[in-house]
Amino acid sequence: MNFASDNVYGVDPRIMQAMVDANYGTAVSYCHDDGSKAAEARLSEVFEKEVKAFFVVNGTGANSLALSAISPPFGGIFCHETSHINTDECNAPELFTGGAKLITLAGAQGKITPQAITEKLKAFGHGEHGAKPSALSITNATELGTVYSPAEVKALADVVKPKGMKLHMDGARFANALVSLGCTPAEMTWKAGVDVLSFGGTKNGGMLLEAVVFFDTSLAEDFLYRRKRVGQLVSKGRFLSVQMLAYLQDDVWLANAKRANRLAQDLAKGFVASNRVQLFAPVEANEVFAVMPRKMFDALQAQGAHFYDWPMEGLAADAVLCRFVLSFATPEGDVTQFLKLVRETP
Amino acid sequence: MNFASDNVYGVDPRIMQAMVDANYGTAVSYCHDDGSKAAEARLSEVFEKEVKAFFVVNGTGANSLALSAISPPFGGIFCHETSHINTDECNAPELFTGGAKLITLAGAQGKITPQAITEKLKAFGHGEHGAKPSALSITNATELGTVYSPAEVKALADVVKPKGMKLHMDGARFANALVSLGCTPAEMTWKAGVDVLSFGGTKNGGMLLEAVVFFDTSLAEDFLYRRKRVGQLVSKGRFLSVQMLAYLQDDVWLANAKRANRLAQDLAKGFVASNRVQLFAPVEANEVFAVMPRKMFDALQAQGAHFYDWPMEGLAADAVLCRFVLSFATPEGDVTQFLKLVRETP
Amino acid sequence: MNFASDNVYGVDPRIMQAMVDANYGTAVSYCHDDGSKAAEARLSEVFEKEVKAFFVVNGTGANSLALSAISPPFGGIFCHETSHINTDECNAPELFTGGAKLITLAGAQGKITPQAITEKLKAFGHGEHGAKPSALSITNATELGTVYSPAEVKALADVVKPKGMKLHMDGARFANALVSLGCTPAEMTWKAGVDVLSFGGTKNGGMLLEAVVFFDTSLAEDFLYRRKRVGQLVSKGRFLSVQMLAYLQDDVWLANAKRANRLAQDLAKGFVASNRVQLFAPVEANEVFAVMPRKMFDALQAQGAHFYDWPMEGLAADAVLCRFVLSFATPEGDVTQFLKLVRETP
Amino acid sequence: MNFASDNVYGVDPRIMQAMVDANYGTAVSYCHDDGSKAAEARLSEVFEKEVKAFFVVNGTGANSLALSAISPPFGGIFCHETSHINTDECNAPELFTGGAKLITLAGAQGKITPQAITEKLKAFGHGEHGAKPSALSITNATELGTVYSPAEVKALADVVKPKGMKLHMDGARFANALVSLGCTPAEMTWKAGVDVLSFGGTKNGGMLLEAVVFFDTSLAEDFLYRRKRVGQLVSKGRFLSVQMLAYLQDDVWLANAKRANRLAQDLAKGFVASNRVQLFAPVEANEVFAVMPRKMFDALQAQGAHFYDWPMEGLAADAVLCRFVLSFATPEGDVTQFLKLVRETP
Repeated sequence: MNFASDNVYGVDPRIMQAMVDANYGTAVSYCHDDGSKAAEARLSEVFEKEVKAFFVVNGTGANSLALSAISPPFGGIFCHETSHINTDECNAPELFTGGAKLITLAGAQGKITPQAITEKLKAFGHGEHGAKPSALSITNATELGTVYSPAEVKALADVVKPKGMKLHMDGARFANALVSLGCTPAEMTWKAGVDVLSFGGTKNGGMLLEAVVFFDTSLAEDFLYRRKRVGQLVSKGRFLSVQMLAYLQDDVWLANAKRANRLAQDLAKGFVASNRVQLFAPVEANEVFAVMPRKMFDALQAQGAHFYDWPMEGLAADAVLCRFVLSFATPEGDVTQFLKLVRETP
Repeated sequence: MNFASDNVYGVDPRIMQAMVDANYGTAVSYCHDDGSKAAEARLSEVFEKEVKAFFVVNGTGANSLALSAISPPFGGIFCHETSHINTDECNAPELFTGGAKLITLAGAQGKITPQAITEKLKAFGHGEHGAKPSALSITNATELGTVYSPAEVKALADVVKPKGMKLHMDGARFANALVSLGCTPAEMTWKAGVDVLSFGGTKNGGMLLEAVVFFDTSLAEDFLYRRKRVGQLVSKGRFLSVQMLAYLQDDVWLANAKRANRLAQDLAKGFVASNRVQLFAPVEANEVFAVMPRKMFDALQAQGAHFYDWPMEGLAADAVLCRFVLSFATPEGDVTQFLKLVRETP
Repeated sequence: MNFASDNVYGVDPRIMQAMVDANYGTAVSYCHDDGSKAAEARLSEVFEKEVKAFFVVNGTGANSLALSAISPPFGGIFCHETSHINTDECNAPELFTGGAKLITLAGAQGKITPQAITEKLKAFGHGEHGAKPSALSITNATELGTVYSPAEVKALADVVKPKGMKLHMDGARFANALVSLGCTPAEMTWKAGVDVLSFGGTKNGGMLLEAVVFFDTSLAEDFLYRRKRVGQLVSKGRFLSVQMLAYLQDDVWLANAKRANRLAQDLAKGFVASNRVQLFAPVEANEVFAVMPRKMFDALQAQGAHFYDWPMEGLAADAVLCRFVLSFATPEGDVTQFLKLVRETP
Repeated sequence: MNFASDNVYGVDPRIMQAMVDANYGTAVSYCHDDGSKAAEARLSEVFEKEVKAFFVVNGTGANSLALSAISPPFGGIFCHETSHINTDECNAPELFTGGAKLITLAGAQGKITPQAITEKLKAFGHGEHGAKPSALSITNATELGTVYSPAEVKALADVVKPKGMKLHMDGARFANALVSLGCTPAEMTWKAGVDVLSFGGTKNGGMLLEAVVFFDTSLAEDFLYRRKRVGQLVSKGRFLSVQMLAYLQDDVWLANAKRANRLAQDLAKGFVASNRVQLFAPVEANEVFAVMPRKMFDALQAQGAHFYDWPMEGLAADAVLCRFVLSFATPEGDVTQFLKLVRETP
């Protein structure tokens, strides 16, 4: 029973097979292969818009690179205080942008509100002493397993775009948000004002399956240099592009996300039914955040269940906030078995 | 009537005269002049400890350089959300440190508490995903005109030192805090756990009068390279060191700070007596923070009084938080005249 | 006939199979998996010394990260003017080190001599105006397909080590050099003074098969943070470590390198025998550098042979320096067929 | 007798007096004072073009900031191998640009030729592996005391401008070159293709008298943020701008430069007449480079003459290349006295 992360699991067999199938003959190296071109074209279809797509190695690379294209080194990048770029990328955004400042916002359920960004912006723009507001970065699905609707994204864009700021979306769990929302990829992104997207597939079945996708393609100028400079360009690039092609083929990505989301719902419903664990945030993607007593936490771990406690200020002394991540590959029985443990653990 | 900042005024005439007097013959350039050595020795006397002191050009340089000596690029530097390094140095700390992250803490009256830093640290140290906690930076006097006592500094040091973190003090208004506290420079710094100090004198009578002072001199290794690399080394260095010597001679620095602090007290008392302006924070140095109605703010400005409104969340809609800075050179009569305006402005 | 690079070919089938075999169940993510530990232990055996090994994504990452561990941002890194870090990594070393300067040295056959580094060092160390000499980086096999003997490496170490400088080896083609030299991995590296090695396997059969290997393990402190910060940490790390394990098993790495080197010898001998193409440098690894007339170059390309011209100052106007890279996977017949073309092309 | 540098001397008394005179009342801080505006306007007159001018603290700051405005972090900045930005700024250009690479060119007498840059550029522009050529930086007068004529500058501009590169001039000794050339400031700069100039006055009589002057004012966008971010903005900015105003008034700058240049000519002629010291480069500004035997070098130093030996590869074993810098303030008699020593020292 491993709910620690979506990346404790391996690779979707169809994606792995595509990698094996790609392993013959020669191919132009450094992501100038035909597959990279085809995958970019496929993303343009998916997003109903001519995009520029660059395949990179991981989410940290995708996010930090995307931000480097939309923020000068003297810029300020507004983000949620729980965002991955702020808490889990060990200063990579600061490095890749040349020192831009992440300016953090609080907000319930991992989400930024138009009010919060409006209020925070008041302290900026009075000359060169503070950072120059350059970008807003949001995560969809959020770090707390909730999702922004297209209307919510649009409302944020309406605040920042008139100020010349760009809008970035961290889509590490893009597919999970997409199938939860039931909208199109276009509606979820550029139609709502997103300029550049970190399109993540590693968590949803890839091995190294991440792309920076520009909807405002003018921002992609010189991005080849940027990707190379930060060490996110791989020589045998065909093994990246083929993952993307297999991921998007036959709706593999959507099916995987649906399964993970459904398992999350199953787990959440079990928690509610058990009356022993309290949901901390709405379950809208493939993560469940829930609070349990420290004693139960320890007992469940001791019985072989893997999941993380999550730092959160303001909880009761003996309460633990726990994160459960459901994956395309989580065995069906693990949820059932774990819920049984929850009900039975004293 | 100019209360906008301590740096709208010029240079103490004694310091200016010392610069004029230094303008003859030749001197070794690049801060290897005899005056630089003498000024370092003088600071060692003042602090009752052999220090390493490096003269630099401004407070941004001093702070960001000091931080670069105590935080790796993957480090986390904890500071108050209102600190100068966070709000008024346009990402210079991020630049000079190579991308270290400023992690901000809230706290009443511009001060960080041991509880706040203890709580925040809980989210760090669980591996390489977040920044590595490397330093705590505090400002004394604070950005809200309050001061940390040596005991308060010590209590913060006791939290961070056992974790291998270093303690930096931004002393842009060091003298104002010192004369307010009535302690010794040693008690205010290294005896309370401070490793490195930005010792500022520009606001208190200098032209470019700033030094990075290391109490833990092992941290100063290669600092000559650091200072040069960031452009804070000046060629005709004698004109920096002579300012420091004149500043510390005959207690010029203490006298200037006392005068500024007294004027701040006069202004604050006048506000209280007027019953029309509310103090926002205790007045413990040379700054007064006070709240007045927007209408009064506009009327006072229109009558030629210069002072800034200060961004602050949570105020009533028509209330303005104002900052008044009193300087060694503020004319005595300006306070009297301004208080008259306050009382008379409808 | 593709001699453009070793990375136009795919992955050794044994390594690919190992990746497929690793694709089941769960594994601890972020390179804390058992495989990463096993691969580090295996490298310790190979190098006859307890090493610290960190698996990364590509050679640019390995080199730039290694340099960041041995050079401060104000440091100077001495390297050959043709080195990959200088010409083919688009400022990544400058980025990862925080701005260290690459100081280039000329030298015949892609190699640095003790005399060259001794002479160049004379301009440094006179104070903080120039970079502080911090490291020497050499490439083995070199960019011109030659190799440094252990004695040659030792002679360089003897110049720089007494000055407190560290020695880095870029081993993008480590195995090719090793089997050419006929020495042990230990003799080629730490026994000759190397502190840190970029151990590359991608060109010799891997997909993303690169490691930073520390022989002076004290330099590896906080390297987990460094790797994460620059975006070289992958979540599903088992797919990196398993490549290394398969590569080192059953001498796959040595056999692949031997084959590539032998093909290079075959090609070089054919050039000499043809009397139409002149070798430019001794052929000591898996690359052949040779000069031919522009007309022949164009004719060969037109007939479907892929290889690059190589920028080189001082050639005759109609002469082209060409690079031919032979790989573990280059079809045997390609060399024969190409040599036939060389002989027959007018 | 001090010929070590132009910065071992103090400040022109007229400039110092102007600083004293400026020391009254209040002024808007952070270089938004009226004097800064006036000095910018004055520079526009001097250069016969509406310029954007930013006052900074030193030459390292001016150069590195100027380069940061014309080179992206993935850019390549071409410069002479002896240029100040390459040898004497301890990686500040790398820092301020975010990691751009300095690509060095050899060239007689400290000067870059169109041929040299043309040849070097051949290795670039073949994709994202190397730095993107972004700028050429030349120094006038050069580090070897020679000058570029407007026609020579134009010839360099004609090579790089069609490639989208920008042209920077390091004018640390701008006035010395100007009076040597006998042309106008406009002819020496923008009329010859210069986009941005480091206009230095510290060596020629200022205390901290440096400006970044943009002729292509579109490059100055957001430069206020840039200057602040790197710590080159001073709070009491009036003391910078007033130096510039005094420097440009009554041709102080031209008179000072003429005097220094004439002294250099006197020294050079004396060397030639002595037949004991050989000139190494034409004397075209205020520096003399000459070769003497080691024994003479030691004897002269022992008699109290201060001047530096200059690192130079390829000299005879017992020969020393010496640099003599003549300043606006060098006493007339020092040259006479030193030449006497030269003639008499055995």
